Amino acid sequence: MAGPSSSPASRSAASLTNNEARSLFVLSAVCVAVLANTFQGDGEPLIASLAFSGLAYAATYALIRWLGPTFIRAGLKGVDMSKHTRRELPECMGAVCAVVYLLVVICFIPFPFYKDIVAATSGGGNKDVVLQVEHVEQGRFLHRFPHSKLASYLSAIISLQSIAILGIGDDLFDIRWRHKFFIPAFASIPLLVVYFVDFGVTSVVIPLPLQPYLGELLHLGALYYVYMAAVAIFSPNCINILAGINGIEVAQSMVVALLLAGNDVLYLLTPYPHPATDSHLFSLFLLLPFLGVSAALLAHNWYPARVFVGDTYCYFAGMVFAAVAILGHFSKTLVLLLIPQAVNFVYSTPQLFGLVPCPRHRLPRFNARTGLLEPSVTVWAAERQPNRAVAWGLTVLGRLGLLRVTLGAKGEFVETSNFTILNLWLVWRGPLREDRLAKEVLAVQAVVGVAGLVVRHRLALVLFREDNWGVGDVL
Amino acid sequence: MAGPSSSPASRSAASLTNNEARSLFVLSAVCVAVLANTFQGDGEPLIASLAFSGLAYAATYALIRWLGPTFIRAGLKGVDMSKHTRRELPECMGAVCAVVYLLVVICFIPFPFYKDIVAATSGGGNKDVVLQVEHVEQGRFLHRFPHSKLASYLSAIISLQSIAILGIGDDLFDIRWRHKFFIPAFASIPLLVVYFVDFGVTSVVIPLPLQPYLGELLHLGALYYVYMAAVAIFSPNCINILAGINGIEVAQSMVVALLLAGNDVLYLLTPYPHPATDSHLFSLFLLLPFLGVSAALLAHNWYPARVFVGDTYCYFAGMVFAAVAILGHFSKTLVLLLIPQAVNFVYSTPQLFGLVPCPRHRLPRFNARTGLLEPSVTVWAAERQPNRAVAWGLTVLGRLGLLRVTLGAKGEFVETSNFTILNLWLVWRGPLREDRLAKEVLAVQAVVGVAGLVVRHRLALVLFREDNWGVGDVL
Repeated sequence: MAGPSSSPASRSAASLTNNEARSLFVLSAVCVAVLANTFQGDGEPLIASLAFSGLAYAATYALIRWLGPTFIRAGLKGVDMSKHTRRELPECMGAVCAVVYLLVVICFIPFPFYKDIVAATSGGGNKDVVLQVEHVEQGRFLHRFPHSKLASYLSAIISLQSIAILGIGDDLFDIRWRHKFFIPAFASIPLLVVYFVDFGVTSVVIPLPLQPYLGELLHLGALYYVYMAAVAIFSPNCINILAGINGIEVAQSMVVALLLAGNDVLYLLTPYPHPATDSHLFSLFLLLPFLGVSAALLAHNWYPARVFVGDTYCYFAGMVFAAVAILGHFSKTLVLLLIPQAVNFVYSTPQLFGLVPCPRHRLPRFNARTGLLEPSVTVWAAERQPNRAVAWGLTVLGRLGLLRVTLGAKGEFVETSNFTILNLWLVWRGPLREDRLAKEVLAVQAVVGVAGLVVRHRLALVLFREDNWGVGDVL
Repeated sequence: MAGPSSSPASRSAASLTNNEARSLFVLSAVCVAVLANTFQGDGEPLIASLAFSGLAYAATYALIRWLGPTFIRAGLKGVDMSKHTRRELPECMGAVCAVVYLLVVICFIPFPFYKDIVAATSGGGNKDVVLQVEHVEQGRFLHRFPHSKLASYLSAIISLQSIAILGIGDDLFDIRWRHKFFIPAFASIPLLVVYFVDFGVTSVVIPLPLQPYLGELLHLGALYYVYMAAVAIFSPNCINILAGINGIEVAQSMVVALLLAGNDVLYLLTPYPHPATDSHLFSLFLLLPFLGVSAALLAHNWYPARVFVGDTYCYFAGMVFAAVAILGHFSKTLVLLLIPQAVNFVYSTPQLFGLVPCPRHRLPRFNARTGLLEPSVTVWAAERQPNRAVAWGLTVLGRLGLLRVTLGAKGEFVETSNFTILNLWLVWRGPLREDRLAKEVLAVQAVVGVAGLVVRHRLALVLFREDNWGVGDVL
């Protein structure tokens, strides 16, 4: 590892412009003022969370700029293959996001769980028990976060720290695809273990049409933990797999986070007290700082990217979603919002499972002459043609317009486009500039997500006795 | 970063011998059997913790061996300067310890906090509150870990994960000494925040002779948090600074852990229930797996070392001690056990604070002719002599036998030994082989530690109304 010296060029690229420094300073000052005010007053946690998110944005923005050369010196670097000049860019900047995010959500802990320490009795051992009884009996904290949610919040932090450590390990050591697929499973252990110890509800409500056969509640037992682990594995991996062009990893995560946050706000607007309000408040406390650090990363990772995010970011983002969904009991809503990613995953399976050869990189091909992206392809040599079943599948997909298939003079396969929705979009829309492709895919994702939420809240009224949004009470 | 291929040589160096594989397999099988038994029976957490620690040993031992070449490929490597052949060894292996340790303590969570899920009422929202009332009213879990300690345990895990992330960052980016000194402060934030939310006791008991003036309890308030942060900064840094020869970082940490664990066992032997028993059980649950992973690391790091531990290990070890001491309310005991490290720190201050030039490495000098270690020295050029005050200090230390001072013909300073107790020990004892030096310093540490514990339990009876060991009840 190199010494601390750095060339003047890298130093200037690694410093904030005067404008940036001024804006970040003003933002930070405003946030600190809001925080100080919150602390003196009643400690309104949602305002505090917003202020913390602003601070997280400022800190992440500055740190990503400052640490770029350090990351490159430590070997965390990559080349942008979709540009004319192939410069080395810092890789794994998601780790900066993760560290700032974790610091912020840790420092935030007192706000929702704030209680008057002066009023507490002095002395040792049994004080916490005394306080719990008081809490249960007088309900004096019920208008804020219940104190008993502390363990949930802490377990979410532990899961997120675990995924950060494992993600950094992946970025450092380049773990193989089939091994790293299960990294989120390890990181979900804290969530599941604390869920087991502290909550332990493993029943699901049965949809009305099925209730005559299955009863009102289905006790899943151990299967429920398998389900939660599956959500925790699915969410990070499907974000990690929809990648390859500037900004797409961060922007898609922000779309999901914004939709989840929007869904949370719906619950806050219902008349209090509503059983699910606390879960969605909890979800906002974790999502707002995530939006803060992600926005700062996107500013550096959007086309033309000056940093890469690394697997760390994708895993981390997916785990934030899994944590809020599992602990907030709205994992089905999360799955709805990840439909584009799920489609991309299902579409990718022929290559992931080895039916079709899978090159190291499947990102769209950069055409240096036009400056546009085109679908990247798998080449089929004459002596290595697909077997009969695969050939039939490729032909069908080609006819359906779900694949670009190029056949040779004798009808043999010459090349097929790679199985990602980014390539498929380019097959449909023709060559696009990198940022244009990202914007269009993100727009589709946003539309699908909003539609999913609408369907979810409408359909819930049909399938269940009541939607947990509360509107179902009129039925 | 290199691809997944590895040479046959590195592959054989990275695999377990048949004997090792057999021993580790038997150990793991026994531990799994014990665990399964514990789970079926009453769930005795201390037995489970021992079994988990055995598994942690086996996993760490195997992973350190297997991952060596991967670490070297990723650039995490260093050269052993105290050997004839200067081979490149994997660095930062403490990160493996940390990850295995964290996984183990997370999976361990259900054991102390075990409760009958079948007996729990089904359904949503308020179940946790119901359980707490039940717990408070019937006291049915009082013979095990109180459920309310879950937050403490989780906050300890969060602090340890934070130090692991920051330590890995330090090992990757080679952060400067005066910056990285404060890394443990960041990592202690989770401990302090959860302490603030969940406990909030900030008074200390005043020694009897001072009680007429200060009262029985002194309310420290915010100062108590400063004190706890100071312990959390002191413990990791003072372990990190007593380093430089094979095995010393790990072995000194194991001595401290063993002494802390021995102290904990003393409390478990008192008649139940004792107010401090739970704290010391909690401490054992965190210390036993630490001893497991450390023993596996020591097997690879002891003279002649085949891996290096990295700053990650030292920080991590220190934070384990800080976490158990802070949450268990025996931070003064911890400080007693770290006296050798504190002496080393105080002795180092002339170089740390720049009064005497501080070279990049202060580890003892390897004499290739004898194969022994000798004190390393700071050279004083004729034109860069110490100023009058420093010269006086050096002379006094030399006369007291606390420094080797070599004077020139005209009485000018030629060289002085570096300010570490490892060098000082070599000044006193003459050249020693590396493992001999380590063993002697460790023996001194163990003797000082045992003496400290004896004094602490005897003196407590004089200074306080009762020792929290409970023997003081007879006074």
